[in-house]
Amino acid sequence: MARRTERQMVAVLRERFRPAATVGANQPNAAASIHVGIGDDAAVVAGSEAAWVSSVDAAVDGVHFDLAFLDYADVGYRAFQAAASDLGAMGAIPVGALSALILPRTLSDAALDRLTEGQAEASRELGCPILGGNISRGRELSVTTTVLGRCPDAPLCRGGARAGDQVWLVGSVGLAGAGLACLRLGLGADGVGSNARGTALRAAASEASRRAVERCIGAWRRPRALLEPGRDLAGIASACIDVSDGLATDAAQLARASGVRLVIERELLRAALDQELLGASHVLKRSALHFALYGGEDYALLATGPSGQRPTFARPIGVVTRGQGARLATPEGERPLSRGFDHFGR
Amino acid sequence: MARRTERQMVAVLRERFRPAATVGANQPNAAASIHVGIGDDAAVVAGSEAAWVSSVDAAVDGVHFDLAFLDYADVGYRAFQAAASDLGAMGAIPVGALSALILPRTLSDAALDRLTEGQAEASRELGCPILGGNISRGRELSVTTTVLGRCPDAPLCRGGARAGDQVWLVGSVGLAGAGLACLRLGLGADGVGSNARGTALRAAASEASRRAVERCIGAWRRPRALLEPGRDLAGIASACIDVSDGLATDAAQLARASGVRLVIERELLRAALDQELLGASHVLKRSALHFALYGGEDYALLATGPSGQRPTFARPIGVVTRGQGARLATPEGERPLSRGFDHFGR
Repeated sequence: MARRTERQMVAVLRERFRPAATVGANQPNAAASIHVGIGDDAAVVAGSEAAWVSSVDAAVDGVHFDLAFLDYADVGYRAFQAAASDLGAMGAIPVGALSALILPRTLSDAALDRLTEGQAEASRELGCPILGGNISRGRELSVTTTVLGRCPDAPLCRGGARAGDQVWLVGSVGLAGAGLACLRLGLGADGVGSNARGTALRAAASEASRRAVERCIGAWRRPRALLEPGRDLAGIASACIDVSDGLATDAAQLARASGVRLVIERELLRAALDQELLGASHVLKRSALHFALYGGEDYALLATGPSGQRPTFARPIGVVTRGQGARLATPEGERPLSRGFDHFGR
Repeated sequence: MARRTERQMVAVLRERFRPAATVGANQPNAAASIHVGIGDDAAVVAGSEAAWVSSVDAAVDGVHFDLAFLDYADVGYRAFQAAASDLGAMGAIPVGALSALILPRTLSDAALDRLTEGQAEASRELGCPILGGNISRGRELSVTTTVLGRCPDAPLCRGGARAGDQVWLVGSVGLAGAGLACLRLGLGADGVGSNARGTALRAAASEASRRAVERCIGAWRRPRALLEPGRDLAGIASACIDVSDGLATDAAQLARASGVRLVIERELLRAALDQELLGASHVLKRSALHFALYGGEDYALLATGPSGQRPTFARPIGVVTRGQGARLATPEGERPLSRGFDHFGR
């Protein structure tokens, strides 16, 4: 059977990524504001007096995702959410996205369909239409997503934290890391990421533990960018970063950009952890706190701001002080938070 | 010796891509309008009432470039110019770009330096600052560039050609294709793309022929996006596309988008060809017209518009008629222009 030509693929993508005709309350960017979308040399978006925000993020096979544990739809979905998460961290309203795919010859049309369905699903959920993109041949599958947004208020940057601010956590941390650990142990339920040892462990676990494992696996496979909380933080928080590499690493990044020290209080962080993380960590016989600090890929938001202005959805987990670096405060004393995962580290 | 960490690489890139402090006449986007650049979650650009344009383009090792014939600086330079070419085709003023690099472990820091120097050089030449980006590990080198621009006038789209318009060519076609053919034949002068057969051919050629070969090789290694001519076409041309895949393919794309037929008149096209293309084609013993129609990678502009409004820098090479497809008119009659190169074709 003949494979699709490039033009046919573009036609499929144009159809799949067509902006929704009806725009709901979650989707502040009306489709009407897109003047030119997929199929022309470039996408055109109507301007306004707001600041415009753009960011790009790549997901590479074998580096950012493992097809042993993910369907192609998951690959597309999470690549899009990961890219969009940067809009949340800036407090931006999504305007649109561009998708650049590098596709090996071995990738079937069906797999590409699944992948782009996952992208389209995330795009719809976030109200962030795919305005254009590029497809290229290559030996290695990758999904590179550019997101564009606008900020009616001042954008939330990493460099605004001041001594005396509180440290806030929005969303959950640790679940995705625990979910990946569950899959690696064979605790998956659907034949993906399951093996005899994991199946025995599942059988021995309580119903609540099994639900906790499922929830963590879901958090890793299908993360969700926190665009609305990000917008709500704009004008309130002094600084913000999305937690993609683990709380320890991203706290250190925010501290560095702001020229301050971030002190995370262990007992406050513990109190902010999800029950499902505790449940899955119990099954895994590993520390929930470790997943929370070093797990990554949750796409929570880490912000700072005056304690008196903390929104209810933001949980206080520490304080900003003079100094540098990210530290963990415990009843026994304070210690540096060592770094999380770095693809470029050895 | 220890390799750079991800953070160190970002620091190097931030320095390299820092917007110029002085902004010249060629650079309409003042550095001051960039509110947040490299090193934060996203790049922020001040908005205005103009339409905003964005496009993404990938260059993949072994698909879009061949390191046997290019230095890493050339790879970065041409990837950036190729992406920016889409801004020219839209008649847009560049606002900035995002660079997403997938880097194999085998790529040395020195090679990465060269690659990003090439990107920075193109960025400076075009007045299109790199606002941010992403670096990822992978097995296969690729450079994915997002460009952002704005259009004070209506953007130049592919779909506006009307029967009765003239077909215009801006810039040169065929040189890049001929240059690549020269390198493949061993006609390179600097040890890159040279062999005994090529060296003998060079020795037998005239000084003018050697200059022609050099010019064509330079056109392939260092293409230049036609941003200023693109802006000058805005408000005049009815449609425009950049010639990245070869005149035949891109003429067919424009015809399809506009629902018209594009007829390229062979003798007009011949008259528009560069002397250097003719010289290099003579050395190669191949048809200059073939390179012009099927060569690709020149990043010329193909536009349409009323003959009375043709700017002097646009050469007339044909007419738009009712019908469909792209055709070549010769004194002997008209024939369809078959397609150029498609990475996804067989």
